[in-house]
Amino acid sequence: MEKREFLYEGKAKKLYGTDDPTQVVVEYKDHLTAFNAQKKATMGGKGRLNNLISAHLFEKLRDRGIPVHFERILDDVHQLVKKVVIFPLEVVVRNITTGSLCKRLGIREGMELPRPLVEFYYKEDALDDPLILEDHALLFGWATREELDTIKALALRVNDELREIFSGLGIILVDFKLEFGRDMEGNLLLADEISPDTCRFWDRSTGDRLDKDRFRKDLGDVLGAYEEIWRRLSGGAGR
Amino acid sequence: MEKREFLYEGKAKKLYGTDDPTQVVVEYKDHLTAFNAQKKATMGGKGRLNNLISAHLFEKLRDRGIPVHFERILDDVHQLVKKVVIFPLEVVVRNITTGSLCKRLGIREGMELPRPLVEFYYKEDALDDPLILEDHALLFGWATREELDTIKALALRVNDELREIFSGLGIILVDFKLEFGRDMEGNLLLADEISPDTCRFWDRSTGDRLDKDRFRKDLGDVLGAYEEIWRRLSGGAGR
Repeated sequence: MEKREFLYEGKAKKLYGTDDPTQVVVEYKDHLTAFNAQKKATMGGKGRLNNLISAHLFEKLRDRGIPVHFERILDDVHQLVKKVVIFPLEVVVRNITTGSLCKRLGIREGMELPRPLVEFYYKEDALDDPLILEDHALLFGWATREELDTIKALALRVNDELREIFSGLGIILVDFKLEFGRDMEGNLLLADEISPDTCRFWDRSTGDRLDKDRFRKDLGDVLGAYEEIWRRLSGGAGR
Repeated sequence: MEKREFLYEGKAKKLYGTDDPTQVVVEYKDHLTAFNAQKKATMGGKGRLNNLISAHLFEKLRDRGIPVHFERILDDVHQLVKKVVIFPLEVVVRNITTGSLCKRLGIREGMELPRPLVEFYYKEDALDDPLILEDHALLFGWATREELDTIKALALRVNDELREIFSGLGIILVDFKLEFGRDMEGNLLLADEISPDTCRFWDRSTGDRLDKDRFRKDLGDVLGAYEEIWRRLSGGAGR
């Protein structure tokens, strides 16, 4: 599958057309951003690791029956995915309290929630991706009742699957962000990426942060953490 | 009913004990604050108007079957209410888009919503009263499922009643904030106040703002607007 015309550049990925109008090529960049791109860096090799990790996880989820936009990995930094129209929603699932949740609500860090919490954020950089109610999405036409229900149910299933995968690797899945879209046939699919850029991973033994929080909080050795996630995932899967 | 020991001072009201442990006296102050008290003023006579308006509306709502903490008006700036433990929630009902909703979500001002929108905010000045999901209130113990359902249903009934009352006076009820509490017998009651400090009122003919937005936006003649609300309410009720 040849990558053709440039379509779109986001903070961490670029999209290109292909010969097939229903498919696009995703290029994973080495750029790392945090706090709505107020903090930026380039980290050689990050794009490759996120491409490998994301492809691996999409495959695992597809095997377990989750509808995904992912088709196949092409090379170190490219993957082929179904072209989707993304819902303007960031779907966050939380198992343990940390990050913006604690800051916004004055909640203690590191509490295990009695059940996973699903939050919707309106995907709009200019507004800093505000938290929204489902009613906001319904009233302002960002998704229908049925779409929100499907997305929420899928997000919780993804959480169950990912927790199981990472638990087997000695990693606690703290929280993560998903995006969903509709392909040209109208199927609602899990899209975007699943990587240390979009998840919080804590080492179960040491408590070490193995994700973008190393960058957000200047903890050092960001790339080493991403490598560690890939080492365990690929080792655990015999890759 | 004699007002006894001072209990609490808020931004716009003071509370005093009474001889009856189940009742407190509310004193309406002339203080006006906006933007979480970053903007402050004192306006002679504001306390009296809000006391009269609030008492009048609580009476109307009680007559229509809404459970309220309000017992009776005592004098120009005092009213007697049941002592309640307030839920740490600000309940906002919106009929027309304006204010923080438009700013947070990039929504156009002045759109009539197809149905009323109920939002919960966590009542915590230090955090700037953040918007929350019902799930946040449930997970962090601010209210139970049953309490949220009751509060939401009551808020929508209050909206219906207030819209009808104000519609008959040529006033559009744009949005408003309510608070709820439990009295010592465990009854869930509408509490706090209902006044131009806590509601947005637009004159139907002129579009004039008849509420605290005159103060927030420096539109001038704040007290005149509060007086106009009271003039129409008391005239309409033959008071």
